Amino acid sequence: TEDSSSRETDALVHFLRGAPPTSGASQGQLDSLHQPSGAIHPASLPVTSLVSGANRNQHQSKPGGGNYSAFSEASSTAVAGAPAASGGPLGASDEEMIDLTPGQDNPFRDPFGAQSAALSQHRREAATAMGNLGGGRRRSSSGGDDFVDLGGANPIDANEAAGLAEGHYNDFETIDWLKDIGRHRKRHREILRRMKLSCRGKLVSLFDSFSGWLCVGLIAVAAGLVAGVCSHLARTWMSDPSGDGIWRRGVLWYTWAELVGDSNKDFGAYIFKYLLYILWSLLFALLAALLVKVFAPYACGSGIPEMKTILSGFVIRGYLGKWTLLIKSVGIMLAVSAGLNLGKEGPMVHMAACCGNIIAYLFPKYGRNEAKKREVLSAAAAAGVSIAFGAPLGGVLFSLEEASYYFPLKTLWRSFFCSMVAASVLKLVNPFGNDHLVLFYVEYRSTWSVIEIGPFILLGVIGGLFGAGFIRANVWICRIRKFGRLGRFPIAEVMLVTLVTALLAFPNTYTRMNTSRLIKLLFSKCGPEDEAELCDYKWNSTNDYSGSAPAGPMVATVFTFGIKVPSGLFIPSLAVGAIAGRVLGNVLEQVAVSRMDSFPFRLFCRAGQPCINSGLYAMIGAAAALGGVTRMTLSLVAIMLELTGGLQYIVPLMIAAMTSKWVGDRLTKGGIYEEHIRLNGYPYLDNKEEFAHTTIAADVMHPRRGEAQLQLLYQDSMNVEDLETLMAASDVNGYPVVVSRDSHYLLGFVTRRDLMLAL
Amino acid sequence: TEDSSSRETDALVHFLRGAPPTSGASQGQLDSLHQPSGAIHPASLPVTSLVSGANRNQHQSKPGGGNYSAFSEASSTAVAGAPAASGGPLGASDEEMIDLTPGQDNPFRDPFGAQSAALSQHRREAATAMGNLGGGRRRSSSGGDDFVDLGGANPIDANEAAGLAEGHYNDFETIDWLKDIGRHRKRHREILRRMKLSCRGKLVSLFDSFSGWLCVGLIAVAAGLVAGVCSHLARTWMSDPSGDGIWRRGVLWYTWAELVGDSNKDFGAYIFKYLLYILWSLLFALLAALLVKVFAPYACGSGIPEMKTILSGFVIRGYLGKWTLLIKSVGIMLAVSAGLNLGKEGPMVHMAACCGNIIAYLFPKYGRNEAKKREVLSAAAAAGVSIAFGAPLGGVLFSLEEASYYFPLKTLWRSFFCSMVAASVLKLVNPFGNDHLVLFYVEYRSTWSVIEIGPFILLGVIGGLFGAGFIRANVWICRIRKFGRLGRFPIAEVMLVTLVTALLAFPNTYTRMNTSRLIKLLFSKCGPEDEAELCDYKWNSTNDYSGSAPAGPMVATVFTFGIKVPSGLFIPSLAVGAIAGRVLGNVLEQVAVSRMDSFPFRLFCRAGQPCINSGLYAMIGAAAALGGVTRMTLSLVAIMLELTGGLQYIVPLMIAAMTSKWVGDRLTKGGIYEEHIRLNGYPYLDNKEEFAHTTIAADVMHPRRGEAQLQLLYQDSMNVEDLETLMAASDVNGYPVVVSRDSHYLLGFVTRRDLMLAL
Repeated sequence: TEDSSSRETDALVHFLRGAPPTSGASQGQLDSLHQPSGAIHPASLPVTSLVSGANRNQHQSKPGGGNYSAFSEASSTAVAGAPAASGGPLGASDEEMIDLTPGQDNPFRDPFGAQSAALSQHRREAATAMGNLGGGRRRSSSGGDDFVDLGGANPIDANEAAGLAEGHYNDFETIDWLKDIGRHRKRHREILRRMKLSCRGKLVSLFDSFSGWLCVGLIAVAAGLVAGVCSHLARTWMSDPSGDGIWRRGVLWYTWAELVGDSNKDFGAYIFKYLLYILWSLLFALLAALLVKVFAPYACGSGIPEMKTILSGFVIRGYLGKWTLLIKSVGIMLAVSAGLNLGKEGPMVHMAACCGNIIAYLFPKYGRNEAKKREVLSAAAAAGVSIAFGAPLGGVLFSLEEASYYFPLKTLWRSFFCSMVAASVLKLVNPFGNDHLVLFYVEYRSTWSVIEIGPFILLGVIGGLFGAGFIRANVWICRIRKFGRLGRFPIAEVMLVTLVTALLAFPNTYTRMNTSRLIKLLFSKCGPEDEAELCDYKWNSTNDYSGSAPAGPMVATVFTFGIKVPSGLFIPSLAVGAIAGRVLGNVLEQVAVSRMDSFPFRLFCRAGQPCINSGLYAMIGAAAALGGVTRMTLSLVAIMLELTGGLQYIVPLMIAAMTSKWVGDRLTKGGIYEEHIRLNGYPYLDNKEEFAHTTIAADVMHPRRGEAQLQLLYQDSMNVEDLETLMAASDVNGYPVVVSRDSHYLLGFVTRRDLMLAL
Repeated sequence: TEDSSSRETDALVHFLRGAPPTSGASQGQLDSLHQPSGAIHPASLPVTSLVSGANRNQHQSKPGGGNYSAFSEASSTAVAGAPAASGGPLGASDEEMIDLTPGQDNPFRDPFGAQSAALSQHRREAATAMGNLGGGRRRSSSGGDDFVDLGGANPIDANEAAGLAEGHYNDFETIDWLKDIGRHRKRHREILRRMKLSCRGKLVSLFDSFSGWLCVGLIAVAAGLVAGVCSHLARTWMSDPSGDGIWRRGVLWYTWAELVGDSNKDFGAYIFKYLLYILWSLLFALLAALLVKVFAPYACGSGIPEMKTILSGFVIRGYLGKWTLLIKSVGIMLAVSAGLNLGKEGPMVHMAACCGNIIAYLFPKYGRNEAKKREVLSAAAAAGVSIAFGAPLGGVLFSLEEASYYFPLKTLWRSFFCSMVAASVLKLVNPFGNDHLVLFYVEYRSTWSVIEIGPFILLGVIGGLFGAGFIRANVWICRIRKFGRLGRFPIAEVMLVTLVTALLAFPNTYTRMNTSRLIKLLFSKCGPEDEAELCDYKWNSTNDYSGSAPAGPMVATVFTFGIKVPSGLFIPSLAVGAIAGRVLGNVLEQVAVSRMDSFPFRLFCRAGQPCINSGLYAMIGAAAALGGVTRMTLSLVAIMLELTGGLQYIVPLMIAAMTSKWVGDRLTKGGIYEEHIRLNGYPYLDNKEEFAHTTIAADVMHPRRGEAQLQLLYQDSMNVEDLETLMAASDVNGYPVVVSRDSHYLLGFVTRRDLMLAL
């Protein structure tokens, strides 16, 4: 009936104006509040209530929809708005995998949109914190407990409670941090209330308060076990397919040469081995690509760009699911064994996050609350780096600097704990065989001279240039892959890349060997007694390796990162940088040997001893290259320290990391992950960026001059029928509510979603 | 005249309502905005404008004043409000030094006050970020450029510009982050404008954009030099006064024994040395205490609690001044040489911050803007730890986890750079004599067994208990010192503590030696061939050291930390923990030796080899004790790693840090710094805390029932005379502005300060 529907509209308006004073309540309400008996002074609440009020209209990502209203553009989440507004297809097909929509074509990624998004981002972060006060408290009164009471100023009807209880997001939707935190608060208060009532309640409360630590602990154990098992399997089952022959029970059964001819050095055996290597690689790569395509399309790539997006508050269903975990674990082993130029470290972070997501579902506190789940996922990301590199400290810093979006100190401690437990579990499983948890442990403790800061800075510059070049080339190729014909045949592409890689890699010992082993070799020091090929100081002019190999992995990785198998780029980047650093170190050493008595060298070189430690230069170069690609600083240094144990070289590492970041940032806007996020058009807003603002709101808002008027809701005169007509006639995402047709005094704003829920 | 004054009131009201729509503009204004020609829709601005509006009343700390109005309590910065409201004396006298006011007696530190403060803190952080948009943009239109234009909706008069240009805070005032950031934006825009005009403008702009890096670089150089010079002086000039005799030009000139008697082992020489040691100590301590008392009262203590407070946005004039730097540098050397149980690491952080503050004045961008200066100070704090421990990574993490309040990624990179440069400079000056920048470098690379996690957790528990006990005892003593008679004689107290310390310390070799050397000894490993006294596994039952010494430094430090000389507690805490760890390690080793074949030991012990590395246990124990006292986690692990180079032991260190934090947090609310902040009643709001909220606004607001009505300003009817009468009649810090006497529709809020500026 007319009456009830108008009552409903009233209730809606009530709901809308949530916190009366600043969202703009009617005057009478304010006056009544101001009576001495009305205990709350209007001015005592402004920011809280407004922020929570404004945050209501944050989850407006409307998949596939265009035509935003003025509100969603200017005042609500541009983060969520960006992809939807560009009208790209949001349902990911198998072929398109996770390409949402190209960010470049997006009209709302202009400065103002970015600004507004920056604003809403900060507001969101602030709101998450403020949920403690405003959201939490206000909502509690709808929970039915008389725990707090705002003096009756704030009637909240069932709609909001329903909205709170729901907390379910569709795929490709941006979460509403405030609402989720509000739900969390409500849940917490409910548990506290029950605790007072019964003994079971006490137990539940106790469990609940420890469930955060328990959850991250379990995640760490799971991630550690997965990593341990994977590493173990990779080492024992999938050894170098170009090995000497068929192994059986640890004994060389037949060498290839025996199978083919009789001489071990026979050309035929070489060709046979070559062919076998290629076949083996192709087989592994095919398997990996098929597994990814058939079972878990999300398992491709490194997963870090997507994880960043998810941690920033986006929902991609299944991206952190069990299938992704399983296929990614198997796929990465296959891909590494195929000899492709990729690392298993990035995918391990993704795998740890999958563990985190799966285990979070065991705990209602986290599983049913997307905002809380992100805290757990941040910790899982830390554990991922911890297990990937054996770098627990670096893991926490990676999560802080690179992966996470909202990282309060509580999450820092959880990440710390998670990282620690994961490293302990891995130590227990002991996959590296030796006692060190240190992957590229360097034995030398030689000192470095302050004058060497010059070459270190040069390495940083090289790393930055390499990183920027790599990013540009990779993004260019990925764009071709995405929009060109190439993208239609992902498996053929994988096979092609594998074939070329295998063809090029086999002839050279260094490119054929496991990249990690290569890096370890490059990092090692050359003593005068050292006879290894790498320590022949002439090699960089005579050996075929020096000129081609540094370019080799680089070119290969540019093509590899982005194909549809699991692939990380930490290790390839490190390898390229290590080669560059080693070359520079060897050149310097040769100069030093010949000019021992001239200016810079006589200060720190002594005759008869090696003067330049080219292993150290390789280490610094590796850090610089990885820094140039990812633009990490603090976490990079921590990871490099934990990888090498070279604590003496922390300052050189810092110098290289800082320089390569500076140089890289001049050339490309962000690291490879940010560029991939931009390429794929994910709704991510970099919290590292600062936004210059020259556009004014009027330029980007709707309605523009000449457009139709804004659709409004009128407090005094609308009924349900009117509402439904209005909603059918328009497709905007929300409506402002004003007093009446005559007085456009703003009362609040209601989103289409909330309105539909209420109807 | 009446007319002009009413115009002024109007202008004031205009100023007050700054951002019309949400701060509550009149309806007509809104309506006019909503016309299609008025480009900005009201709802597009809410959060920005409100936050900036609300932030206007943030700097209301009124030194020495009591009786806050409703606004300052509930809606404005409780951070600033806390000390002022309790009516404590805020002008620090020499005797009271930096004791602002006891936090315990503070009626506004109740849950709600804390909440409201938490709110305003988050709001402040959000506002800082949002200043980009709201504050900055709005203010720019008053700067006279037509850069942006909000459609004429926002007339701002000269008052605000004056307020912006000022930016000067009184002593013991809380800064207004938003205003400062707004001023920064305005300045930046002015520079950009000039850049377009002239060549000189371009240069200025270039310089300005690099000045941040340049500034932190200079700070790092200064801090590194100060640390290097201090360490060098301390090593060469102020060596152990209990040495063997009088040294001259590096040669032992006379031994004490030669001066007193003829036998070197004579009892007389011993007594003489003892007396000399005590006299020497007393002399040094007296000098340090006098210097502090006469020249720089702020130089006492570690300075970290105050730095935390300053970084959180409080102004203490002179706390980071040149006198403090000078006296602290000299004083800490004297205090360490006096043999007091204190470390020079905490003061070094303070000294680095002093360098930061002094150098920031060279750069108008930072020197004249308190909010921006805090970014630089955060970086300086990182450099402080970097030079104190030779731990650049730990420094950044210390600044992040412990010292800083507002730490965006930009500050992280600056801190990283600052830390790096400082470490490089120190490496150049090379104060530790050897090539390692690593203070307690451990030589061993032995592995640890997973079973040993048990004892490590035990050490963590011990560390947590020790930390909590230490904090309680120290706070108890400091309270006596503060409120009892003891506090009236600071110099006598210093002398007494020194006398007792010297008396107790001399007889034992370990307590007499430099604490850093003791720690290095404790951390070292005992091989079977090792004959050092510490490696005699019987010593913990026979040697007098074992029982008394662990208690000794602890008791001494409890008294020492808080006396009026520069004093840090990192090193003493480490020493206590190292002793405890070493004892546990030795006990376990003895058990292991006797039960080599029984359950836990046979898993990892081999006959003939030492099974338990008690040096490692000492290291873990040290970390646990320091963690218990300071409650650091991530930064603690990083610092310990960089102190020892024991990268293999990162997981044990993490376990100890985490456990001691957990245990400690059950027993005391925060670390020693937080407790000292609380003890001294600084207006600090811990951003680590979460606030449970059971109080409602009505309970803490003024006017309460029965109190006088709130003083209001009326838009329509007040003139300057009315205003002056009202201000003379009341002493509240701000007034709400309403439409008229009849309609209490809120227009905004004006602070007393702004009002006085306007009049």
